[in-house]
Amino acid sequence: MQANNLECNKPIGVFDSGVGGLSVVKELFRQLPGEEIIYFGDTARFPYGTRSAERVRAMALQDANFLLGFDVKMLLVACNTASSVAMEYLHENISVPIIGVVRPGAKAAAAATRVRKVGIIGTRATITSGSYQAALHDFDSRIASFGAPCPLFVSLAEEGWTGGEIAEMIAGTYLAGLKAAEIDALILGCTHFPLLRGVIGKVMGDGVALIDSAESTVHDVGEFLEKEGLLRTEPIANHKFMVSDAPERFKEIGDMFIEEKIDRVIKVILDD
Amino acid sequence: MQANNLECNKPIGVFDSGVGGLSVVKELFRQLPGEEIIYFGDTARFPYGTRSAERVRAMALQDANFLLGFDVKMLLVACNTASSVAMEYLHENISVPIIGVVRPGAKAAAAATRVRKVGIIGTRATITSGSYQAALHDFDSRIASFGAPCPLFVSLAEEGWTGGEIAEMIAGTYLAGLKAAEIDALILGCTHFPLLRGVIGKVMGDGVALIDSAESTVHDVGEFLEKEGLLRTEPIANHKFMVSDAPERFKEIGDMFIEEKIDRVIKVILDD
Repeated sequence: MQANNLECNKPIGVFDSGVGGLSVVKELFRQLPGEEIIYFGDTARFPYGTRSAERVRAMALQDANFLLGFDVKMLLVACNTASSVAMEYLHENISVPIIGVVRPGAKAAAAATRVRKVGIIGTRATITSGSYQAALHDFDSRIASFGAPCPLFVSLAEEGWTGGEIAEMIAGTYLAGLKAAEIDALILGCTHFPLLRGVIGKVMGDGVALIDSAESTVHDVGEFLEKEGLLRTEPIANHKFMVSDAPERFKEIGDMFIEEKIDRVIKVILDD
Repeated sequence: MQANNLECNKPIGVFDSGVGGLSVVKELFRQLPGEEIIYFGDTARFPYGTRSAERVRAMALQDANFLLGFDVKMLLVACNTASSVAMEYLHENISVPIIGVVRPGAKAAAAATRVRKVGIIGTRATITSGSYQAALHDFDSRIASFGAPCPLFVSLAEEGWTGGEIAEMIAGTYLAGLKAAEIDALILGCTHFPLLRGVIGKVMGDGVALIDSAESTVHDVGEFLEKEGLLRTEPIANHKFMVSDAPERFKEIGDMFIEEKIDRVIKVILDD
């Protein structure tokens, strides 16, 4: 098993459009403490959710190729928008295993719904791609899905306005249609949205399960690594955080997403 | 004057981080109907206002160089963020005359204030750069200036939520400090903010003049062209609109900024 041990010891590459993917890193630290993480946040081109699918695919491939340079054993696409529109393109162009957040999130929602009505909130690109809707249908074709783009949630979270009257009014406006549809599970289909879990829960009410893809995605990553004999189990603290712009602001906002302090964020320049 | 006529007939290059610069184009059409406009909106990398100054400078220079390829007689930087942090860098690296929106906006505000207290709202990058504050001080060193970053206004405008209770509450929160400072002139230091003029005016009250840089900037452009003998006066309709991503969405949101229909938007790819 010597060769396999060498493979095990390789890091996992995680990328996101910016800081939001740290919510997935938080889950990685919790569920898979033996894994070394190489994180790239494309802060120079954040957000991805307002761009065309073609543009997101091109950026995601660059991000992935950049991480391949660190000899990662697998890639985790923490960005919902990239997971929605670029997975097929990445699979075609990248040789290491890749897991995105959409299918695990949809799986968790399909398991949670009793009335088979699931809501999805995310960026405009994520919702219009129909990715979650298609994945839900794959898991259970009887599920009716209801998507609502909530672009202002991203700015609200970045501004730190995650509670209070303004956040509640915006949530009330965006979620009215989903409430009317009487869903009982709601996918938080953007890494920023778990920060607004409080107001979203308040608007939707206790009967609606809020699904954060991060937890189920990392669960799937763990299963995959175990099956392939690639799981690394000794605790490690040799992680690397890189961004394409404004590392200081990344650290500052990062604190909202992850409890552990990130000491050092390296700025890199990606050829576009 | 043959040579000069050839120079006159050259277009004016205008760039912005996205669609907001169309508010400047609207003024160009109104005040200088003889000028041919070549517009570039960097929608693939919008917004600029959340990036580092270094990153904004690099992008602004690329935008400028791209427009130079169209043999423009001058450049107009419609983006407040780029005008705030990149003008010196552009002047050092670009040979044609360049006018930004900051100095003309500050000049108009300095002329408008009676109590010599001027507020400035804009993106985080614009406000923290201190560009408007410095320009106001240049025009009248007795003016006290008060800056307030209003990042959510950009998303509100893009979402089309320019009126109503949510917009008013957000404006009330952002503008509370400026109201308390008893300013009598407020610079709308971001091309998106004139769309929120109604709610901003409602919060600030009738005694506060709202200064839109577009009008005074185009006024200065006209003066400059006249002085240099570069003004073109026969009406023209041969304008060009280019973006780096999502031309359809540009057209859609563009309708909020400019009354004239934009028929055709060309997508171009910029090397980053």
